[in-house]
Amino acid sequence: MKKPSIKDVANEAGVSATTVSRYLNNRGYISEYTKERIVKAMKVLRYYPNEVARSLFTNQSNFIGIIFPTTNNPFFGELIFHIEDELYKRGKRVLLCNSINEIEVEKDFLNMLRSKIVDGIIVGSHNEVIADYQIPDLPIVAVDKQAGHDIPNISCDNYAGGMLAVEELVNKKCEHIIFLSGAEEHSKDMNLRECAYIEKMKSLGKEVLIEQIPFSNSLDEKREKLHAIFEKHSKIDGVIAGDDMMAAVVLTVVKAKGMRIPEDVKLVGFDGAKTTLSLLPELTTIQQPIAEIAKQAVELLMLEIESGKRIPKEVRLPVKLIKGITT
Amino acid sequence: MKKPSIKDVANEAGVSATTVSRYLNNRGYISEYTKERIVKAMKVLRYYPNEVARSLFTNQSNFIGIIFPTTNNPFFGELIFHIEDELYKRGKRVLLCNSINEIEVEKDFLNMLRSKIVDGIIVGSHNEVIADYQIPDLPIVAVDKQAGHDIPNISCDNYAGGMLAVEELVNKKCEHIIFLSGAEEHSKDMNLRECAYIEKMKSLGKEVLIEQIPFSNSLDEKREKLHAIFEKHSKIDGVIAGDDMMAAVVLTVVKAKGMRIPEDVKLVGFDGAKTTLSLLPELTTIQQPIAEIAKQAVELLMLEIESGKRIPKEVRLPVKLIKGITT
Repeated sequence: MKKPSIKDVANEAGVSATTVSRYLNNRGYISEYTKERIVKAMKVLRYYPNEVARSLFTNQSNFIGIIFPTTNNPFFGELIFHIEDELYKRGKRVLLCNSINEIEVEKDFLNMLRSKIVDGIIVGSHNEVIADYQIPDLPIVAVDKQAGHDIPNISCDNYAGGMLAVEELVNKKCEHIIFLSGAEEHSKDMNLRECAYIEKMKSLGKEVLIEQIPFSNSLDEKREKLHAIFEKHSKIDGVIAGDDMMAAVVLTVVKAKGMRIPEDVKLVGFDGAKTTLSLLPELTTIQQPIAEIAKQAVELLMLEIESGKRIPKEVRLPVKLIKGITT
Repeated sequence: MKKPSIKDVANEAGVSATTVSRYLNNRGYISEYTKERIVKAMKVLRYYPNEVARSLFTNQSNFIGIIFPTTNNPFFGELIFHIEDELYKRGKRVLLCNSINEIEVEKDFLNMLRSKIVDGIIVGSHNEVIADYQIPDLPIVAVDKQAGHDIPNISCDNYAGGMLAVEELVNKKCEHIIFLSGAEEHSKDMNLRECAYIEKMKSLGKEVLIEQIPFSNSLDEKREKLHAIFEKHSKIDGVIAGDDMMAAVVLTVVKAKGMRIPEDVKLVGFDGAKTTLSLLPELTTIQQPIAEIAKQAVELLMLEIESGKRIPKEVRLPVKLIKGITT
């Protein structure tokens, strides 16, 4: 089967190829009658306009780049699902990039943005801020990431989340509460959850205990570090995990050490993705409003694309304590 | 900052705009010396060639469409992660499509393939076979899906997996084993896992018991159906779940009914994604070689793209029984 051309469509519709081209590229006046004939001819011939060529004229590719560490995680898997869903409803398609193994991929995506392959980017990577994000006027929205002073940031209320986690453990009479941060080793970012933990602990006159177990570490690395942490701090009776995947490792390690949860050690996670709540319904955790984060990120990006301007806005969406049996 | 043009690059390099254009589109002879000057000028000016325009000449977009039900699932999240990783290594980028809410999106993607937006498609959707896949010569690879007679299908050895699951339960003295199929309601596809279950049960003279709880059902729907199933079949002492997410629901429902696992009911899941093994290490399951499935799917698609031909191949990769404490 030969692929039909614009000329074939023109012949079928009884108009000139130039008219078909004008219709496809939305230029100049074409009567409703002619339009209908062109559309009908396209259907008859199963003609699909070369969208690559069209995007040259419309100057929009309708692709949105999304950069997140990995789809292989309940929180990001759910977030990416909703972002794709929201974008699809708006006629946009998702160019997906898992950044966990590659720092360079973020730069790569910025190049795509410059070369008009994507109309905008939603970024939620754990990688460090890269200066390139500062290029003015490129539509970017960050999710839970400080990407630059004029780049909007949509996140859950991390501070309130940290507060809720400490309060839950304090209410349950924990005395030695450790905060396990998932930040990368050389990150300078002070997470707001961590801030809330420090403030609350200080205000209660309790010891501040923070250890870093990077999100990108393998399961074995995480286990090993946790074992060492429990050796070093033998009095721990409360744990705030950086995310629920970390909380699951805590559960395993604590059990392996012959301690009981919640009798000996109490545990609060973070994220509360649906997959996690299904597989580990026992976990007490701070739930992020994942679908709402996705929706607001997409809406803001659309605004940026339409207006051609950055919208430096901070949006913080409410979190919720999900009570399991680990506290 | 004004975006640099081809003309600016030509001026900087001291060559004609035509030469720069020839370089970008890989047409005609250009000396190494001239090439170097053009590349240097592009760097100096931070010129990023319009890749949309370039793809018109090279006739490859370097985009690959991937269609899976949802990233919001441990198995697909992990599979999509590895597919993206393998494609990225080969200079390809992923256009992601979650198909769980939309049957039309598959057709949409086929239109993109026809209009040269993507060079190929990897499809693993649970939707029914659509006739459109039969269009010759479009590079498509299916993962665990019969998409058409000449479309390659990469999957785990579902038959062996079904066999392993039944054997595990039979070895543990289960008498009334039910198979919970995750197939969609009107699906005509007989899953090979189901075939293995039926054959084995018949060969042992045991009753064949199959109930359908579609993968795309909500958590509440799944729970409700399971409650009804356990009411209807009160003798069940062994369950083979369609996937691990279903197995997690079985755990909750069985506990809610006051029965114990594994004492009263034994349970085997399917998939064995890393996230699941982390969050629910207790589960006995059949593990698919997810990274290897991704790798072979991508390799086969690349072969199809390079050769311009369909490669009608069935690849079945070995599965593994992961012994938890639910059997």
